[in-house]
Amino acid sequence: MEKIKRIGIITSGGDAPGMNAVIRSVTRTAVSEGIEVFAFFRGYAGILDKEYKKFNFSDVGGIMEKGGTILRTARVPEFKLPEIRKKAADNLKELGVEALIVIGGEGSLTGAKLMSEENDIKVIGIPGSIDNDISGTDMCIGVDTCLNTSVDSIQKLKDTASSHERAFIVEVMGRGSGYIALMSALATGAEAAIIPENPVDYKALGERLWEERKRGKINSIVVVAEGAASAYTVARHLENRIGFETRITILGHIQRGGSPSAFDRILASRMGYEAIQALLEGESNVMIALNRSSMERVAIDKVLTEKKDLDLDLIKLTNTLS
Amino acid sequence: MEKIKRIGIITSGGDAPGMNAVIRSVTRTAVSEGIEVFAFFRGYAGILDKEYKKFNFSDVGGIMEKGGTILRTARVPEFKLPEIRKKAADNLKELGVEALIVIGGEGSLTGAKLMSEENDIKVIGIPGSIDNDISGTDMCIGVDTCLNTSVDSIQKLKDTASSHERAFIVEVMGRGSGYIALMSALATGAEAAIIPENPVDYKALGERLWEERKRGKINSIVVVAEGAASAYTVARHLENRIGFETRITILGHIQRGGSPSAFDRILASRMGYEAIQALLEGESNVMIALNRSSMERVAIDKVLTEKKDLDLDLIKLTNTLS
Amino acid sequence: MEKIKRIGIITSGGDAPGMNAVIRSVTRTAVSEGIEVFAFFRGYAGILDKEYKKFNFSDVGGIMEKGGTILRTARVPEFKLPEIRKKAADNLKELGVEALIVIGGEGSLTGAKLMSEENDIKVIGIPGSIDNDISGTDMCIGVDTCLNTSVDSIQKLKDTASSHERAFIVEVMGRGSGYIALMSALATGAEAAIIPENPVDYKALGERLWEERKRGKINSIVVVAEGAASAYTVARHLENRIGFETRITILGHIQRGGSPSAFDRILASRMGYEAIQALLEGESNVMIALNRSSMERVAIDKVLTEKKDLDLDLIKLTNTLS
Amino acid sequence: MEKIKRIGIITSGGDAPGMNAVIRSVTRTAVSEGIEVFAFFRGYAGILDKEYKKFNFSDVGGIMEKGGTILRTARVPEFKLPEIRKKAADNLKELGVEALIVIGGEGSLTGAKLMSEENDIKVIGIPGSIDNDISGTDMCIGVDTCLNTSVDSIQKLKDTASSHERAFIVEVMGRGSGYIALMSALATGAEAAIIPENPVDYKALGERLWEERKRGKINSIVVVAEGAASAYTVARHLENRIGFETRITILGHIQRGGSPSAFDRILASRMGYEAIQALLEGESNVMIALNRSSMERVAIDKVLTEKKDLDLDLIKLTNTLS
Repeated sequence: MEKIKRIGIITSGGDAPGMNAVIRSVTRTAVSEGIEVFAFFRGYAGILDKEYKKFNFSDVGGIMEKGGTILRTARVPEFKLPEIRKKAADNLKELGVEALIVIGGEGSLTGAKLMSEENDIKVIGIPGSIDNDISGTDMCIGVDTCLNTSVDSIQKLKDTASSHERAFIVEVMGRGSGYIALMSALATGAEAAIIPENPVDYKALGERLWEERKRGKINSIVVVAEGAASAYTVARHLENRIGFETRITILGHIQRGGSPSAFDRILASRMGYEAIQALLEGESNVMIALNRSSMERVAIDKVLTEKKDLDLDLIKLTNTLS
Repeated sequence: MEKIKRIGIITSGGDAPGMNAVIRSVTRTAVSEGIEVFAFFRGYAGILDKEYKKFNFSDVGGIMEKGGTILRTARVPEFKLPEIRKKAADNLKELGVEALIVIGGEGSLTGAKLMSEENDIKVIGIPGSIDNDISGTDMCIGVDTCLNTSVDSIQKLKDTASSHERAFIVEVMGRGSGYIALMSALATGAEAAIIPENPVDYKALGERLWEERKRGKINSIVVVAEGAASAYTVARHLENRIGFETRITILGHIQRGGSPSAFDRILASRMGYEAIQALLEGESNVMIALNRSSMERVAIDKVLTEKKDLDLDLIKLTNTLS
Repeated sequence: MEKIKRIGIITSGGDAPGMNAVIRSVTRTAVSEGIEVFAFFRGYAGILDKEYKKFNFSDVGGIMEKGGTILRTARVPEFKLPEIRKKAADNLKELGVEALIVIGGEGSLTGAKLMSEENDIKVIGIPGSIDNDISGTDMCIGVDTCLNTSVDSIQKLKDTASSHERAFIVEVMGRGSGYIALMSALATGAEAAIIPENPVDYKALGERLWEERKRGKINSIVVVAEGAASAYTVARHLENRIGFETRITILGHIQRGGSPSAFDRILASRMGYEAIQALLEGESNVMIALNRSSMERVAIDKVLTEKKDLDLDLIKLTNTLS
Repeated sequence: MEKIKRIGIITSGGDAPGMNAVIRSVTRTAVSEGIEVFAFFRGYAGILDKEYKKFNFSDVGGIMEKGGTILRTARVPEFKLPEIRKKAADNLKELGVEALIVIGGEGSLTGAKLMSEENDIKVIGIPGSIDNDISGTDMCIGVDTCLNTSVDSIQKLKDTASSHERAFIVEVMGRGSGYIALMSALATGAEAAIIPENPVDYKALGERLWEERKRGKINSIVVVAEGAASAYTVARHLENRIGFETRITILGHIQRGGSPSAFDRILASRMGYEAIQALLEGESNVMIALNRSSMERVAIDKVLTEKKDLDLDLIKLTNTLS
């Protein structure tokens, strides 16, 4: 096996804090092994447009602490077409890029896997998704930072909630997954989390809030995942039932920003390093994963066929503790 | 003049970070002067209901760093009626409370002044309002913390905004005042602030954002004060004109929470101390104010008849620098 | 097996952020199961002095977000004596306390285990230690928060370090373990970590820093674990070799404070809940542990006989990436 | 008066958070007025070495939120010599630089003033100093951020201090001024601040701490300005007197880093803008100052001949409230 000479790297799909730390780790590890790094911009779009920059050691200085991704990202729906994936692979080959490192979620990994299988190009995946909805790894890059941002914000609401007779509804990210909503409810002692995995019974919830208020609870906070309902819908349902005013917060993309947490920086640094080790050992079509405190490689195929389930016992725990 | 023996304290209107630091400072300064402190709950409502607690030195330990107000707050519309104000004054007199310290905004100060004049009870005001809309003082309690919260949040949006081709609309507090919106736009390099004091021309704004995007700007952030428009209205107006997607954040009451900043803790500590000094010197119907680095006393009458204007030159500055 | 009626809880050894979240979770889970909770103050000292308070649901409201431990903690060296442990067990029995939940490090768990075995009292351990030096669990309570505090601080140093021609030495916690030092060096791109597990070669380190500076690096940061050397010693060794000034930061107990991170709040909530489940199922002398994303129970005996090793490959990674 | 065509800018002396926001504001305001900006590196050293870069609008993008100064800074003792100042002025003239904007403390302003007077070159000063020791302005750039950093750190200490029977000594910045030490003690409810302006009586302090401990106070925090004593000296003096252990934190340059606060960003943006307005109106040898909420211009001469006094009443306030 001849040693690899040049790799590509992209960030794809929704951005997540820690992606820059992966870019830095991949680049510096590769360069220290004598491998060249071509960084493509805006995900697969940059490969299709041959928009890239050769990255050296110093190109990734001072980026670990930055939120977002300096490579930018884009959703490229046409990557579902085999001919577009072939075009991308051809471009990579023309540029002498032998392997591609893809940081992103399930959609991005699917594209990577197909392009790899169809066109004989090596691919390593790194799980980046604030929703923690990628199977095969304990944690995805960005989840920890996102959760801390949500928790900080909801904690601030609690301060003011205790000063008024009101209920507060906070809408957090999570189109298909209630992970962030449920975990931030648990971590802030919120009254309830409304999530896609578990249908909400507004009548029962309204009664519970009403009971708790009668027992003297002076703040009520409900966290809702955007994929389950909008904050306005929740507010309308509850106001009728609990008889006091509601106030709304929609965190939106704030949760994708911010300097990555220590956990995300370390996870990203380790995964980037491991991705290069995997390539050096001839691997392809694997995703780097965290298993307890160790780095693992999991076949992307396996990742895509399994579903990451949310531990619904945590709902019971949230209710017990709030 | 006989030395005052017992005072009351309330927090009134919208809560603001730093109110607890005032409560601590008033209590400890009073107690160290041999004055008793009756802390009433839920603003004027607590006086009307005689809901209070005698506060000693240790009752206010560990509260300076907390957001919100441990005394809670409420809006009491009926305090506009003279007979209700008389009832409150009578209650205070019955309890032997000779003077009342009121922490709140213009509405709360108006109530205090009227109650004082009509019923011969001493009153000292302390300006607490995250909108910085109280005349006569350089800064109100809570403004600095609120602004830091907004700036932190918008800064996080910038991280992710640079990763996508999108515009972000952030709705911040400010029903009658654009102070927070304008200042946080300035402090984050946002493209524009939409504020009650200055009518927005969506056509011109859309064109400017469009021009900037064409010149290569990869993130657009518009901050809007809730009193000027809703984030959804702004988004609808802009999407049609700039041709790219918008994303929405509504900070809501997050801005009222959070541990107070150093500035707010110091301001609150000094104002609480000065309120007691003013009482000891026989003053009444004055508001404690910050003038440069010094504490001042301003007649509440004067505060209520002047309007605090927003320095609209800061709009030009925001546009120049963004 | 008769259902348990009353339990005790202590925090012992060095305090760690998240201990309050455990106390809240244990209390509320127990109470919801009809079990009484006696909270003893200052660790084993409170049991010996019968200094305790019965905790209900509301006694633990608003404590999850607080650093430190509301139960306080103390080191009780005399707990090494069997007769003292017997005295503690007797006190517990006198108070009708059938089981004790101990949150702390290895020393505290050793005491718990011995007291349990010698005196037939049930014991459940929960690993709390900012050093992450307890075997059998992926993470201890407090580690994540502590690491974020160190990383934030060192990140601030980097800002200013880049403005000057200087080297900065930061002393972090870790008497027996270099975990915090190494991980925070990795997460901030510091030049080196000096840790107890790996002898430092000042000559080689000085030469490396000197080389990097010559190649244009404008900031040098060295993180040192208190157990490996003092910041002053490191500074003295390096100044002679690298020919530029050094500046010192000693973080000290700052690392034990601060509101716990989302990770620590969730871990603490889950471990507290699991401790009660373990008791309900008749277990004793086990420690609650995190294994991937699940709660586990590990025999305390096993925990105490294995050593948690630091992954020294991370030193190489830190060097590669800095 | 002909309109100015080209200006220089330096950051000089100790760096302060917010300096980058000044650089951004000066550059963008100047460029929007058709004025060219030469940014010199490492303060006066960059002028002497002709080390500079022409700054356009986009060169200062994304820097407002960064701590430190992208222009770096240096102390240049030889600038005390008239011939060196002449050399600098000659270099500026050769490069066509008609005016220099200097961001720094008293020493830097002194150099600017002398160079201006001796060599007929225009100079505008902007007060940057975390010590807030520059006369003529309510606040210097960097003070507010520095204070928030100190307060956050000391607040974390309080968490853990309450868990142990110990005293904590925190050494903060301030060689000639106790501003930071005193203000952060006030803002955290620390027991005492040891500052250069006020000699410490260790015997009295020790007795006070001892008394408070006897009355049940469970945490003691003493903040010391580096210019008054070292933390180790304070610890040694107190340990002998209060009979319990002390723990030490030395914040060091952490206080110079960190993303600037909202206050510092706004102050910096306004001062940079005002500096250009002053030049456009033909002014020289003035420092931009904050007076209440307005920008002012103060003769540098006046700034340098007056001394900024610390309000020692705040010591009494700190003692009353702690």
